Amino acid sequence: MMYKNLDQLPSYTTLKNLASHPFDLAAPWALTAHRLQSYVCSSAGFDLLYGTQRIDEQVLAALQKLADEGDAVKQFQAMKSGAVMNRIEGYECENRQVLHTATRDVFSDAPREPRASGQARRELEKLKKFLEDLDNGNIVNGKGEPFTGMVQVGIGGSDLGPRALYHALAAYRVPGRRVDFISNVDPDDAAAVLNGLDLSRTLVNVVSKSGATLETLTNEELVRQAYSDAGLDPRLHFVAVTGQGGPMDNPARYLQSFYMFDYIGGRYSATSMVGGVMLGFALGRKGFVEILGGAHEADLAAEERDIRNNISLLMALLGIWNHNFLHCETLAVLPYSQGLVRFAAHLQQCDMESNGKSINRRGESLSYQTGPIIWGEPGTNGQHAFYQLIHQGTTIIPVEFAGFRHSQYGRDIVVKETSCQEKLLANLLAQSLALATGQHDDNPNKRFAGNRPNSVLMGDRLTPRSMGALLAIYENKIAFQGFLWNINSFDQEGVQLGKKLATQLLHHFAGLRKGKSHGGGDEPGWALLQAAGLVGSRG
Amino acid sequence: MMYKNLDQLPSYTTLKNLASHPFDLAAPWALTAHRLQSYVCSSAGFDLLYGTQRIDEQVLAALQKLADEGDAVKQFQAMKSGAVMNRIEGYECENRQVLHTATRDVFSDAPREPRASGQARRELEKLKKFLEDLDNGNIVNGKGEPFTGMVQVGIGGSDLGPRALYHALAAYRVPGRRVDFISNVDPDDAAAVLNGLDLSRTLVNVVSKSGATLETLTNEELVRQAYSDAGLDPRLHFVAVTGQGGPMDNPARYLQSFYMFDYIGGRYSATSMVGGVMLGFALGRKGFVEILGGAHEADLAAEERDIRNNISLLMALLGIWNHNFLHCETLAVLPYSQGLVRFAAHLQQCDMESNGKSINRRGESLSYQTGPIIWGEPGTNGQHAFYQLIHQGTTIIPVEFAGFRHSQYGRDIVVKETSCQEKLLANLLAQSLALATGQHDDNPNKRFAGNRPNSVLMGDRLTPRSMGALLAIYENKIAFQGFLWNINSFDQEGVQLGKKLATQLLHHFAGLRKGKSHGGGDEPGWALLQAAGLVGSRG
Repeated sequence: MMYKNLDQLPSYTTLKNLASHPFDLAAPWALTAHRLQSYVCSSAGFDLLYGTQRIDEQVLAALQKLADEGDAVKQFQAMKSGAVMNRIEGYECENRQVLHTATRDVFSDAPREPRASGQARRELEKLKKFLEDLDNGNIVNGKGEPFTGMVQVGIGGSDLGPRALYHALAAYRVPGRRVDFISNVDPDDAAAVLNGLDLSRTLVNVVSKSGATLETLTNEELVRQAYSDAGLDPRLHFVAVTGQGGPMDNPARYLQSFYMFDYIGGRYSATSMVGGVMLGFALGRKGFVEILGGAHEADLAAEERDIRNNISLLMALLGIWNHNFLHCETLAVLPYSQGLVRFAAHLQQCDMESNGKSINRRGESLSYQTGPIIWGEPGTNGQHAFYQLIHQGTTIIPVEFAGFRHSQYGRDIVVKETSCQEKLLANLLAQSLALATGQHDDNPNKRFAGNRPNSVLMGDRLTPRSMGALLAIYENKIAFQGFLWNINSFDQEGVQLGKKLATQLLHHFAGLRKGKSHGGGDEPGWALLQAAGLVGSRG
Repeated sequence: MMYKNLDQLPSYTTLKNLASHPFDLAAPWALTAHRLQSYVCSSAGFDLLYGTQRIDEQVLAALQKLADEGDAVKQFQAMKSGAVMNRIEGYECENRQVLHTATRDVFSDAPREPRASGQARRELEKLKKFLEDLDNGNIVNGKGEPFTGMVQVGIGGSDLGPRALYHALAAYRVPGRRVDFISNVDPDDAAAVLNGLDLSRTLVNVVSKSGATLETLTNEELVRQAYSDAGLDPRLHFVAVTGQGGPMDNPARYLQSFYMFDYIGGRYSATSMVGGVMLGFALGRKGFVEILGGAHEADLAAEERDIRNNISLLMALLGIWNHNFLHCETLAVLPYSQGLVRFAAHLQQCDMESNGKSINRRGESLSYQTGPIIWGEPGTNGQHAFYQLIHQGTTIIPVEFAGFRHSQYGRDIVVKETSCQEKLLANLLAQSLALATGQHDDNPNKRFAGNRPNSVLMGDRLTPRSMGALLAIYENKIAFQGFLWNINSFDQEGVQLGKKLATQLLHHFAGLRKGKSHGGGDEPGWALLQAAGLVGSRG
């Protein structure tokens, strides 16, 4: 395939023209029942309500053309089939396949990429055995007691996605099991978590593909020391998820090693063993397999060419419409589900690390915006926080709402004639409407301009299966946007410069520890250490 | 005072001209030691390093003039002295004083606004007695056992600020005491929290100024029912923080009521009893008083006219420079301190609800941007998540970093010649430098444009006192920005429309519960309920 830039696709001009007079959501009778009910896209167990976006039939037709001209679905299929999508033509780069979809393409005899799905299956078999050994008392602590807790030590993709899923599915935990997370190199992170734990009954799952992530290795050492201090043998407690043959693939130090592979980026690794070991421990093997099933269903649904039947692709295109044509720089993801409390934080990585790029796949600078800034907190909490600005601020913020018809725990009461769940859903839909329609009033402080574009992703209940689907819907949305922006969504060179400069500053700290005095001079790093009052005297 | 719009101040034009060629941080030798060490502003125990902002002496001088022309400090002093700052001239509005500063102006015999500080002192006395009764065994559960836990039930300002402070200061808890929070009307929030609690040893602190907040009343009922189901008497467990004489000021239902007053907005209420009861329980009275002391110190420091000696005012002006003159729509707040894990979420409310406004204090529409979008997560975690976009994305994101020279727990180890704390600080300063300077490279994927403006707020250690100061520094920054934008930062009319529409949708749910069928028609709310699959059949 010859990849073209977004603004080289013929429909780009069509859309630019259409964007000069986008659909007016705030006009009287704009939101007809017919509109709201026909602008619903259903796949993988979710319904996307998008009648409150600033689109009409013309825009939808142009977005469909844009998707076709940009080979969005074909690129997605190529990715799933093992094409080397993680590359920049003509420049040194990672040069890798992108096969997170293979970790859930494990249910048929003919997976799209048999080698990767075969490796995923082997890891699933290892996990099955490991979890059975925990259940059967074959793996126990030094006193022969079963494990009740797990600490996941990892950062970035080894933390955010797994943590988001754990919080989302805590309602389905195996009774008596809990998981904690340590990620930050700030020593207070580990200290606070370790403070509350019975180490003797706790497994430690250390997750690092390279086996060389600074934060993770450091935190592992902190935790190992806590085990030693408590007179416990780390070998009976520590498990690794890492690259095969890497420095952490070491039976002398770990009870068991599970493998991750170079064709899965950290931010797409929640459905690999990076999420699997912890989620299998917390939810049982069946729970994790349900997640995979939901994700696989969404992966299949994402191959549909018609944007009206492909939630991921439609969300990608609506995002591009709002971002590149209506010029909104950010996107708020606002789930009306307390379980999804950390989902936006996961999406921040998955989306912004993937699509926060300025060059195309030939290394050329781009003249249009790529990935937006993603942020959000659960509703209804956010309503009492930042919604003021979304409704009446000077910046238009597109919103992706999400919600579920039923609660997880089913513990509810009726207060003032409605249940909590009904209150939650009424608020969700009311916000969608209010942002779209706005309100006239003689008091300027009670005026709402409306025309704030938004959509609502509605599922039946947040379960392992629907969580898997939701995760994949967003992963695939992000990939589709990257394909259409013609960027490499799968590397992260932008994190390297900070690492490099941090290493230089660490040399200063190490030197001071050894009693070496710094040569002085005008090096900015040293000057900043001084300015911060961390070395020598200030100014 | 006659308030002028930002663009009516003479220095606005000066700054607009200066913004056409802002200081180039990426130029060779731009970041001299002299620059980095002289662009440090110190007050209230913090140092603000701002040499990595796109400013020079000319810009600083113009910002100083802007502050003077806009009477920034005079307005702040008027606020502290009890002026009715929460109003829109000529229109129906809240018409209230703004006196959160009075809750910490309790250390001298001559507070700025004696009535409000007198009321704050009386509540502090009640709290002292209450905490002593808990310590002395005068307040115990039905079995005569002391309380070990507290659940705070509240939302928005009654949740975010107190929760952020609790997480920040968990290292200083009274041994054996813990606090949980319930906020969301999603019934799964309460269910998940209640699942893990020993109710018999737990106090419930219900916080609502009006005594009529939907989420809070509903969650209170859910929790009361859990107490009844457990055979426990809620009267021995429930405490209220609410308006005097309001519906929740009821000794028949609460062990004790603490009062909050109409001159303190929810998002500024963490240093009132809204935070005080819970933080006093968790940290002891002394801990809470330390928070007040730090905040008071910052409130005094904010009265300094010279922007080079007033961190709050300087941060406000640098924010206006980046937002109104360099046209950056968002602001990332990135604390390198795991304790501050929920601080950005608090600031989202405090800032965006305050300054997400489109009209001035005479009800006129504004032609410039007001409050930015605030978001953030702690470093170094964020480095492995969204920093890719901050470094190499197509949108410039100003950053406010924060950090502390020392960790809270002091549990640290040396790995590869440096401690975790040193690694944390090296990363913090390296990010500040990297964003500013950027990097040239032949490989376009390794190129960083630089010129990403940022500053670093550095404290000594995150303690109750420094947390109080940090909180107030930000509260005051937000107030200064509102004064200069000429907006009312203290109301939140923008949350009303969503509430109104939610009430309409709840009527539909209530009607269905009673078996009434809906009349049909083309009402958008009903149509949306149908589209979401929540009522009837979908269109």
